[in-house]
Amino acid sequence: MATGAIRVAVAGATGYAGGELLRLLLGHPDVEIGAVTAASSAGSRLGDHHPHLVPLADRTVGATDAATLAGHDAVFLALPHGTSAEIAAQLGEETLVIDCGADHRLEDPQAWADFYGSGWAGCWPYGLPELPDQRAVLAGTRRVAVPGCYPTTGTLALLPALTAGLIDGHDVVVVAASGPSGAGKSLKPHLLGAELMNSASAYGVGGGHRHVPELLQNFRRLAAEPSASTSVSFTPVLVPMPRGILATCTAPLDPAVTADEVRVAYEKAYADEPFVHLLPPGQWPQTQSVLGSNAVHVQVTVDAAAGRLVAVAALDNLTKGTAGGAIQCLNLALGLPETTGLSAVGVAP
Amino acid sequence: MATGAIRVAVAGATGYAGGELLRLLLGHPDVEIGAVTAASSAGSRLGDHHPHLVPLADRTVGATDAATLAGHDAVFLALPHGTSAEIAAQLGEETLVIDCGADHRLEDPQAWADFYGSGWAGCWPYGLPELPDQRAVLAGTRRVAVPGCYPTTGTLALLPALTAGLIDGHDVVVVAASGPSGAGKSLKPHLLGAELMNSASAYGVGGGHRHVPELLQNFRRLAAEPSASTSVSFTPVLVPMPRGILATCTAPLDPAVTADEVRVAYEKAYADEPFVHLLPPGQWPQTQSVLGSNAVHVQVTVDAAAGRLVAVAALDNLTKGTAGGAIQCLNLALGLPETTGLSAVGVAP
Amino acid sequence: MATGAIRVAVAGATGYAGGELLRLLLGHPDVEIGAVTAASSAGSRLGDHHPHLVPLADRTVGATDAATLAGHDAVFLALPHGTSAEIAAQLGEETLVIDCGADHRLEDPQAWADFYGSGWAGCWPYGLPELPDQRAVLAGTRRVAVPGCYPTTGTLALLPALTAGLIDGHDVVVVAASGPSGAGKSLKPHLLGAELMNSASAYGVGGGHRHVPELLQNFRRLAAEPSASTSVSFTPVLVPMPRGILATCTAPLDPAVTADEVRVAYEKAYADEPFVHLLPPGQWPQTQSVLGSNAVHVQVTVDAAAGRLVAVAALDNLTKGTAGGAIQCLNLALGLPETTGLSAVGVAP
Amino acid sequence: MATGAIRVAVAGATGYAGGELLRLLLGHPDVEIGAVTAASSAGSRLGDHHPHLVPLADRTVGATDAATLAGHDAVFLALPHGTSAEIAAQLGEETLVIDCGADHRLEDPQAWADFYGSGWAGCWPYGLPELPDQRAVLAGTRRVAVPGCYPTTGTLALLPALTAGLIDGHDVVVVAASGPSGAGKSLKPHLLGAELMNSASAYGVGGGHRHVPELLQNFRRLAAEPSASTSVSFTPVLVPMPRGILATCTAPLDPAVTADEVRVAYEKAYADEPFVHLLPPGQWPQTQSVLGSNAVHVQVTVDAAAGRLVAVAALDNLTKGTAGGAIQCLNLALGLPETTGLSAVGVAP
Repeated sequence: MATGAIRVAVAGATGYAGGELLRLLLGHPDVEIGAVTAASSAGSRLGDHHPHLVPLADRTVGATDAATLAGHDAVFLALPHGTSAEIAAQLGEETLVIDCGADHRLEDPQAWADFYGSGWAGCWPYGLPELPDQRAVLAGTRRVAVPGCYPTTGTLALLPALTAGLIDGHDVVVVAASGPSGAGKSLKPHLLGAELMNSASAYGVGGGHRHVPELLQNFRRLAAEPSASTSVSFTPVLVPMPRGILATCTAPLDPAVTADEVRVAYEKAYADEPFVHLLPPGQWPQTQSVLGSNAVHVQVTVDAAAGRLVAVAALDNLTKGTAGGAIQCLNLALGLPETTGLSAVGVAP
Repeated sequence: MATGAIRVAVAGATGYAGGELLRLLLGHPDVEIGAVTAASSAGSRLGDHHPHLVPLADRTVGATDAATLAGHDAVFLALPHGTSAEIAAQLGEETLVIDCGADHRLEDPQAWADFYGSGWAGCWPYGLPELPDQRAVLAGTRRVAVPGCYPTTGTLALLPALTAGLIDGHDVVVVAASGPSGAGKSLKPHLLGAELMNSASAYGVGGGHRHVPELLQNFRRLAAEPSASTSVSFTPVLVPMPRGILATCTAPLDPAVTADEVRVAYEKAYADEPFVHLLPPGQWPQTQSVLGSNAVHVQVTVDAAAGRLVAVAALDNLTKGTAGGAIQCLNLALGLPETTGLSAVGVAP
Repeated sequence: MATGAIRVAVAGATGYAGGELLRLLLGHPDVEIGAVTAASSAGSRLGDHHPHLVPLADRTVGATDAATLAGHDAVFLALPHGTSAEIAAQLGEETLVIDCGADHRLEDPQAWADFYGSGWAGCWPYGLPELPDQRAVLAGTRRVAVPGCYPTTGTLALLPALTAGLIDGHDVVVVAASGPSGAGKSLKPHLLGAELMNSASAYGVGGGHRHVPELLQNFRRLAAEPSASTSVSFTPVLVPMPRGILATCTAPLDPAVTADEVRVAYEKAYADEPFVHLLPPGQWPQTQSVLGSNAVHVQVTVDAAAGRLVAVAALDNLTKGTAGGAIQCLNLALGLPETTGLSAVGVAP
Repeated sequence: MATGAIRVAVAGATGYAGGELLRLLLGHPDVEIGAVTAASSAGSRLGDHHPHLVPLADRTVGATDAATLAGHDAVFLALPHGTSAEIAAQLGEETLVIDCGADHRLEDPQAWADFYGSGWAGCWPYGLPELPDQRAVLAGTRRVAVPGCYPTTGTLALLPALTAGLIDGHDVVVVAASGPSGAGKSLKPHLLGAELMNSASAYGVGGGHRHVPELLQNFRRLAAEPSASTSVSFTPVLVPMPRGILATCTAPLDPAVTADEVRVAYEKAYADEPFVHLLPPGQWPQTQSVLGSNAVHVQVTVDAAAGRLVAVAALDNLTKGTAGGAIQCLNLALGLPETTGLSAVGVAP
């Protein structure tokens, strides 16, 4: 495809996910940035929302409607859940629509109803290329549902163990330290800097977080022999950094499974992945290492005394967790090299 | 006991635990601070190590030896593990010795050998007054082993469920976000500010952390009917704040147990505790709320789909997790009101 | 005055300044906390706003009106500027009213008009006891205007040089790193955690900050021989910590003045101050050392090549910068020992 | 020049500056990374020092000596001051040597002696392309002295005012909030995470910082009519973020100069600069906006009451402040487009 040939729009451009999409798209050699749109901020200057996006600072934010989004090869939707389906329906089947929201992630209407209420909008190809056979699904697609940031982290932490049949998705426990940018630019008291700095706090505890059904869906899909009672106890913990997720994931392990077998499974699963990196033995992930990049760092061990496998994964919730993952899917959908415009090296320290 | 009557010494005064002991002792109405000692820093000015301790700034740091520590009613030891026993032996049975290190926490010599190597020094009364019947043990004692900061957090998160028989100590999973002050003032590259700020990182993963056997010891002691296979998967995660631990603790729960039963057990267990506070339903702990105080904030819920109880506890690792807990024990050992000199209100925001 | 005899109310109790007042008042031995009031939050549970204030968690927030605030010995006002005067007028002259807002700080109606607009409400005794002769003014007063947090920092950094005639208030430059709690709990995008963490940003640059006229007023008052052109270039810089101000203050210095003369002036000025501490030579202030305390740490030097005196002061904007300073004034106004209920030792690290 | 044709070595590769050079060089399309060397860490695995640099993780760190560094087109030196000259002398005049240290920045041997002691090693072309006529100096050079991070910030903040003759370098005051990565990976107590998080602290106050003579050298060079008494009061302030500098710079301004004149001078000076960006009126720099990029954000205003111009600049000390600036110079020296391999968009939030 010729340089500059792909014309893309970003709906929801004034939020954090939208800003990260634009940051990455500015560095994508085959993309031209078209419309940038928002709801209540339509008409404002983009630079007022994202001072770091200097090359786009003087762009005027358009309205998120079909007319404004028409005429692009690809449209990224970074919208509140429940609002993507209507827009997508108006964009035409030939347009690549990549939804960074939750609307088209869940296959099960009941799971949607349980966690989001009414309005299940159907399921789109799932934008996690690292899932088995998923690259074939994404190649040429015109609809992509980008995974949630926590599901991406937890799924990639456990994928090799699930596909190798070392764990079966039963009684998984995930606790994820996270920066607040995943919550978006909402003006809520608990997201104020004075509240979040110098503090760690849990939220959505006890199974209520909307990423739970997506994690379960992935575990079931990946498990060589899915458990009859796939389950996950998921707890997100806000910590004082703007970005980044560090997920500690444990699952019951047959005592006969050795640490070597586990290591081999992880090495095999991720040997050829461009963005998922199994750290050398003894080195554990830190979010700093993946900041601003599309990389995922993974480590795994066996806690024999506890009878559990323990895997830890780190990623940047806005990059691989949202916008970077979305662009990885755009590359696959349009037949570009998968890594185009995406860095695998974080900004550390 | 008359005001100012208790003369105390602090060994290991230049470290973070020593500094916190001194900070709190300065506000204790019945205490006079005597010797402040250290190893390699002996001879230096205390203010060079702890600029916040202005009233003690011009004190000269003494040597950590029996001669310097003699003549005090109470001696706090904030020393590297393996060094408390020798000093304690020289202090006389009438001196109250409160060890903030690990040396006298473990009842089982094999557990000590597995995690610390040779030199088990015997077990002292365990300085966690919130354990059942423990206040009677601590009253009048002249030896106290202050618990580790993570065991204090994990134990208080699960105590009511264990003593009520709702969980039995089997397959517990604890993931604890923590500030780096618990690691002390060691000059190690991974503790540098540039490494830790803006990053979350796991360490000691897979059962290797030395606080594991102490957690198990507590779970076994507390369980109404201890499991034949008590176990804990414990993962500490460093996050960008100097102090604070937020532990997410989950354990398998009989499906017949209701959220109400759990709530009642927690309310009953902590109704009269001066420092442990069960938050109202729906409010989850944050470390900011307990910063610099001896308070522990706890919340609990039932994740029915995951079949697990989930409890979260927050405390300040240097206060309730170390120095505050130690002073709480001093109060009990010497017959003072337990809360003397200790705040239950954190410095937030 | 008998213990527990002073009944106090806090208006604006749900904000950060109100919360800090309550935190400190809980530790004040002579105070009983009466009404806690707010505007839009009236009727809510105090614990929903300040989870750290456990002893007051179940208090219901009252309305900020004369009826609710009546019947107290002292009333603290932590209200938006422009709203204190009306309430104060209804409280009666015998009630001690301590205004943490800006309404009664400025002596000059024109300065008020220039920076706040209409509605100058008159000047009250200025609540900075460290100013010369100010303790006599505050003793027995029933009205106190607590200084702004930046003016307190900048004024205490330069006070000894001004009163000793080493500088005259001309061409002062103050740049102050600050946590965002001073901006209150406002739901503004630039105060979100994701914006402020991992970033430093300047605001109110170029003379527009409302604390400028207060700084100038103090400089003029303190200068042994005030300059005909007293001026200050003041720049606040938000940095990633909830609390704390570190102000770097420089002023032209006569080349004949030696570093020793400066040191002597500072030592003399602060020798007997209970909360202002001149650090030993070579040690520079850090905000951590004063966190949560009423202490101010100051250091000073002469930059001969630049022809300037450089003084740095650190304080906690919510404690000495607002609520602690207010309680220090309450103590003075009511004849209690000035340090009652106030710590001079910060929570470090 | 053909892709991949330039073979570069990095000496001091295990430190923060070295790591940033490698991070950026991995994204440079015309560069092949050759030797990576260090002193005491020679023989170790690069991934043990920089876990984010996955593509180079298995490289073995070589020794910093002439033999190892031979055979490269360009050699970056990120070494302790005082050690670059000896290595550089052995590298041959045809090799492009880019020194990120201080050794060859100062033109005046006396200034070197005053701030660094003995061993002035001579002055190299100064690697700040934004200085007038400096690109011509850098084109084709084989020796570059990369500026210090603070001088780059302060110089670019004031350059337009100096070259336009609005200020003359007299009585400049610079206060710079900064992350600790600029201090390198030194194992010093004051650089520990527990000390730096949640705290702001001043250091090198009163004219002692080694970047002072470099700032003065730049001010003298830039001033249309240099003052007879060029001076700067410079104070660095460590704040809790790994990277970033926000410098507040003020200088006396003739009252006749209007804000419009100042704005015009800045617009003119930076209109064509690829990395220096003058923000629109009213928007002030934040370090987050430039994180990980080579961008510098600048804003300026006139404080008429204070008689001073106030300019604020933000950059990433490791990128434009060190490694990015160095690569910008490499591009110029070797005739590549100046922006090759360098981003102008920061990683925000």
